[in-house]
Amino acid sequence: MSALPRIGRLAAGPRGTIADVAGVGVGHATIKAGDLQTGVTVVRPHAGDPFMHKVPAAAIVINGFGKSAGLMQLNELGVLETPIALTTTLSVGTMVMAQVRTAIAAHPGLARTTTTVNPLVFECNDGYLNDAQALAVTEAHYGEALAAAAPEFARGAVGAGRGMSCFGLKGGIGTASRVTHGKPGGWTVGVLVLANFGRLETLTLAGRNIGPLLAARLAARTQSVAAQRDQGSIIVVLATDAPLDHRQLRRVATRAGAGIGRTGSYYGHGSGDIALAFSTAATVAHDAPQQVRDVRVLIETELDPLFEAAAEATEQAIVDALFAAETVTGFAGHTRYALTDLAPDWAELNR
Amino acid sequence: MSALPRIGRLAAGPRGTIADVAGVGVGHATIKAGDLQTGVTVVRPHAGDPFMHKVPAAAIVINGFGKSAGLMQLNELGVLETPIALTTTLSVGTMVMAQVRTAIAAHPGLARTTTTVNPLVFECNDGYLNDAQALAVTEAHYGEALAAAAPEFARGAVGAGRGMSCFGLKGGIGTASRVTHGKPGGWTVGVLVLANFGRLETLTLAGRNIGPLLAARLAARTQSVAAQRDQGSIIVVLATDAPLDHRQLRRVATRAGAGIGRTGSYYGHGSGDIALAFSTAATVAHDAPQQVRDVRVLIETELDPLFEAAAEATEQAIVDALFAAETVTGFAGHTRYALTDLAPDWAELNR
Amino acid sequence: MSALPRIGRLAAGPRGTIADVAGVGVGHATIKAGDLQTGVTVVRPHAGDPFMHKVPAAAIVINGFGKSAGLMQLNELGVLETPIALTTTLSVGTMVMAQVRTAIAAHPGLARTTTTVNPLVFECNDGYLNDAQALAVTEAHYGEALAAAAPEFARGAVGAGRGMSCFGLKGGIGTASRVTHGKPGGWTVGVLVLANFGRLETLTLAGRNIGPLLAARLAARTQSVAAQRDQGSIIVVLATDAPLDHRQLRRVATRAGAGIGRTGSYYGHGSGDIALAFSTAATVAHDAPQQVRDVRVLIETELDPLFEAAAEATEQAIVDALFAAETVTGFAGHTRYALTDLAPDWAELNR
Amino acid sequence: MSALPRIGRLAAGPRGTIADVAGVGVGHATIKAGDLQTGVTVVRPHAGDPFMHKVPAAAIVINGFGKSAGLMQLNELGVLETPIALTTTLSVGTMVMAQVRTAIAAHPGLARTTTTVNPLVFECNDGYLNDAQALAVTEAHYGEALAAAAPEFARGAVGAGRGMSCFGLKGGIGTASRVTHGKPGGWTVGVLVLANFGRLETLTLAGRNIGPLLAARLAARTQSVAAQRDQGSIIVVLATDAPLDHRQLRRVATRAGAGIGRTGSYYGHGSGDIALAFSTAATVAHDAPQQVRDVRVLIETELDPLFEAAAEATEQAIVDALFAAETVTGFAGHTRYALTDLAPDWAELNR
Repeated sequence: MSALPRIGRLAAGPRGTIADVAGVGVGHATIKAGDLQTGVTVVRPHAGDPFMHKVPAAAIVINGFGKSAGLMQLNELGVLETPIALTTTLSVGTMVMAQVRTAIAAHPGLARTTTTVNPLVFECNDGYLNDAQALAVTEAHYGEALAAAAPEFARGAVGAGRGMSCFGLKGGIGTASRVTHGKPGGWTVGVLVLANFGRLETLTLAGRNIGPLLAARLAARTQSVAAQRDQGSIIVVLATDAPLDHRQLRRVATRAGAGIGRTGSYYGHGSGDIALAFSTAATVAHDAPQQVRDVRVLIETELDPLFEAAAEATEQAIVDALFAAETVTGFAGHTRYALTDLAPDWAELNR
Repeated sequence: MSALPRIGRLAAGPRGTIADVAGVGVGHATIKAGDLQTGVTVVRPHAGDPFMHKVPAAAIVINGFGKSAGLMQLNELGVLETPIALTTTLSVGTMVMAQVRTAIAAHPGLARTTTTVNPLVFECNDGYLNDAQALAVTEAHYGEALAAAAPEFARGAVGAGRGMSCFGLKGGIGTASRVTHGKPGGWTVGVLVLANFGRLETLTLAGRNIGPLLAARLAARTQSVAAQRDQGSIIVVLATDAPLDHRQLRRVATRAGAGIGRTGSYYGHGSGDIALAFSTAATVAHDAPQQVRDVRVLIETELDPLFEAAAEATEQAIVDALFAAETVTGFAGHTRYALTDLAPDWAELNR
Repeated sequence: MSALPRIGRLAAGPRGTIADVAGVGVGHATIKAGDLQTGVTVVRPHAGDPFMHKVPAAAIVINGFGKSAGLMQLNELGVLETPIALTTTLSVGTMVMAQVRTAIAAHPGLARTTTTVNPLVFECNDGYLNDAQALAVTEAHYGEALAAAAPEFARGAVGAGRGMSCFGLKGGIGTASRVTHGKPGGWTVGVLVLANFGRLETLTLAGRNIGPLLAARLAARTQSVAAQRDQGSIIVVLATDAPLDHRQLRRVATRAGAGIGRTGSYYGHGSGDIALAFSTAATVAHDAPQQVRDVRVLIETELDPLFEAAAEATEQAIVDALFAAETVTGFAGHTRYALTDLAPDWAELNR
Repeated sequence: MSALPRIGRLAAGPRGTIADVAGVGVGHATIKAGDLQTGVTVVRPHAGDPFMHKVPAAAIVINGFGKSAGLMQLNELGVLETPIALTTTLSVGTMVMAQVRTAIAAHPGLARTTTTVNPLVFECNDGYLNDAQALAVTEAHYGEALAAAAPEFARGAVGAGRGMSCFGLKGGIGTASRVTHGKPGGWTVGVLVLANFGRLETLTLAGRNIGPLLAARLAARTQSVAAQRDQGSIIVVLATDAPLDHRQLRRVATRAGAGIGRTGSYYGHGSGDIALAFSTAATVAHDAPQQVRDVRVLIETELDPLFEAAAEATEQAIVDALFAAETVTGFAGHTRYALTDLAPDWAELNR
């Protein structure tokens, strides 16, 4: 991976992925068959059952042109209680039902002796490369992605990222991590993005606006490639092992906006730009035996390193999505070229 | 309808329903078969295609313990672009997919040459009377309810209201309208509620806390009725013919909270208390031919009568849901008694 | 106080005031001199220095027609770091400067070696009874009110309440408390309101719309009394000894809206309806010696009794403000009659 | 100005300042006397009286560690009704009172026959260069700055910017403009910033992280310069002549976050990062003679060029603040060096 630009000042964790936050796993179900180029990605906050052991979480909306499910209750109660599913826009309902059926299977008392479940589903629109109207994603794909969830996982044109476009190039799944300075061990912030946003002219890598250069190369390659407006959405999932409550996680999630902006995006009108942050430091029991619970939280002035890490890791994860992508031809013969098909590596681009 | 309390000071429209706002239609699909007591209700903002002719809208969350779909984009863009579907909690995903398939059928360019669609689905949890885990609601029920949408419609234990409980009694669909004073013709505010909230002890009708009286009568009738905590949710849909923009509609929707509070609710922890307001005064074209559009909006100081109407009509619609309900026995033999089974009419209760 | 209606089901604390939450003190500085009928009220969250020992807090805006200071930072950081000052609208800036000078005097490092301070000031508009343009409130009045802060305090037409109107009658400071059921000792919720809102026709006491009756009596008394629109604002300060974090306190504050609605208000256009809740269960140190802190918080399902208490105590405090008021004649000879001048007691009104 | 980096792709207006939006004026009152290095800057939305002719406006909070006044009512009613005052943190109350007295003088009916006024005041903390505790800013400085408001105005270490620090260097007032493409004439977005944020190590100009280089030069110059954490706040005021309503202006203001992020900021914990956008396309009358008003608004899909302009102009205005600054020595002998004291021009830095 030395071929991609290194963002910022902070050190990455050992894997350089969201799974540097212990317990976090990612799995994909990928559909690649002619006009169908789509899929599902699942982020599991920990190896246990998140319904019984919820994690503190918060989500923020930078631009709300999107159809995500589950954010309202997550922000009211401050917890995430399912794995996070990412998919194509028109399949959000299918993922919601998949999460419902999974929860029913695991919890016979669901909606009877206990509450219902709050499915958390994010989406981007892959309608350029994928025949979105075919609704190819099924509930089984959720199960497949969830079963595959592990600390080691693929990135690029896989899972929900299969049909995604980013800055007029091939986008998809990207990931990165950062470790904060100056503390024994430091805290880890891991990020996974579903990157499907941006206009090529504005693409900026490590501060360098290389969009026009790539646009020229792309034009030389093909006349038939449709431009991408700054729309299509980006989903940013941030995990941390720092002990943060809902309000603090909201503050961390807000910093994703700085990372997105640095890549050249201005949060386009048609883009659903959303960030969710969760903490694995402790869980909240579904059935609490006591009236009160003891929580450890970071003091507020210690948040700055986490904020810097969140911004850096978001930018790095977007870069990762672009460099991990492969060229894909899909619906109606549409093609999105991988950045690495237009440039051998970052060193060449950065000359 | 003389048997139910008359709320507030303002006059009702001719129908006394949300359909006093011209163009608004409501339809139901009802499932009543033993353990299955559930359904779908659809509110259509106008007789045309809301995707092509969107209506200005805004939603507010009083308590976010709920799984509604579509609120984020509605508040970002300020418009509603589908009929509003109401159903049981675990079937939100099914309704989302039904709206997606309906939109695909009507718009071949969806997610291809134009945007995707933002399904708007509300829910309450009917898991006491209905076998929620059976997931009895299908996409076909959405079509059935939509096809049935008309200015004349049933209320009570129908559609999405079939399995709902309210203040430990039978709840469901209620509706009311108010016409503002002092203007030539006045503006109309129509409300439809899906009422599934409240604890019996706190039930207050027209200011009178008759909950304890009804609780005593209920206890005499049966020992087996489960108490209801102030949870289960209330959805308030407000329509108006006043020319309001998104910000003003958000202000109107906020007033639903006053109406809910007057019935004795304190917005219980487990309740998804949400209000959506839309205006039928003008529509926003999906494909606008021009760069700008001319809009007529009410001046701000004219909003007070609409606020009063919104609070009154919300309270009246909740009362209507209680008085329109019938006793229902459903899942596991659970029964919710209609208020009118415990009291012949309001006059008797209000003695 | 047996002469005023008793709201709701929950028991009051021993004082029946916000000071039933241990440590909370209230003080007034009152100006009553002809055209000048105004003042300052201070609520002190505890007897210590709130800058060094901040309390968890959250504020919500029901209707934002108001000029309060300090809410943005309070909601970002989740803490209150000054006493709460209440005053007349045009004097907010004076109170801000009074809090700044008080903080400078107490903390030589302010804005030098440590942060600045976030003054928390609420206001309502007393321009009917008070010559608001005279700007009679000075910084010294803040000091006077703060010095007077104690668990025993006056209510009615005192302090910031001196010139306030409520439902076309004399309004001002009211207070109440509720203790939750079923726990050893229970939690206490105390409320103080600055009540300056509402239209007489809609006034509803203990569920009874006695506004029209009082309007008739008022008309018989005088032809010169100006009607009050539902504007002028209500500020609700809620204190609790329950261990709640910022998110939970936001949820508690939201329930003030139910209490306000029950008195007949529909959150009028011109009203600044704002609620702030704080917890005295623990404080947050300004200079934290460690990186993390241990916090005890209530589990979420235990919140319902606090929500019910918040709604009830808010309604009771408004009733208290009306019954504690005395008739005041002020600016330009304007008079607001006390409710108790129009009715001997609640029993007579409630006949 | 060829010596500073040119940001982005869009063209600037003729002045390259916020005053490219016709009618907008800016004025300063500057205090520079030893320990006192502070002042006031006023942005006037148009040459008339904004109380009588309000402008549509919206504000967003990126990070709420700040004490600004007036945002709540601005977002409730969607209009700005005073000039915008910017100053040092501890003087917000003084500016509020100055705006109140100005409004009283101009409107004898204020708080009597009409409403009160909603002062709009922003602040940053200049406590490093300025003796903030001296409270040197008086109400007269507001009048001086307002009287000086004009389309031509100084930037850099003037007015509210006098004592501000930015990325450990001298900050202050910066401004820029952008004109959108492809329309007859295009729309103009003008930005003025009060820049007082950022850590030197992260400073990024036109995508280039030149912070470490400047840090080395700064260290060679002096050992006594205190580092700046990413705190201290940035205020972004955006003006446009595009016809936008409150909701759309909120969307425009949100894009300031992208511009701030591109300069290397991660929205530090201690920073009040706030953006306000207003439109001069039409005004809203204080006393409306009619019940409705006709408004022209941009259709939503036309917003993208404005979003891009907002992000670019924000970044450019921050750059402008840094390059327009001069080295200032103030409180306790503290010095902040101007960027141009450490580098002759951008070309040299960008080698």
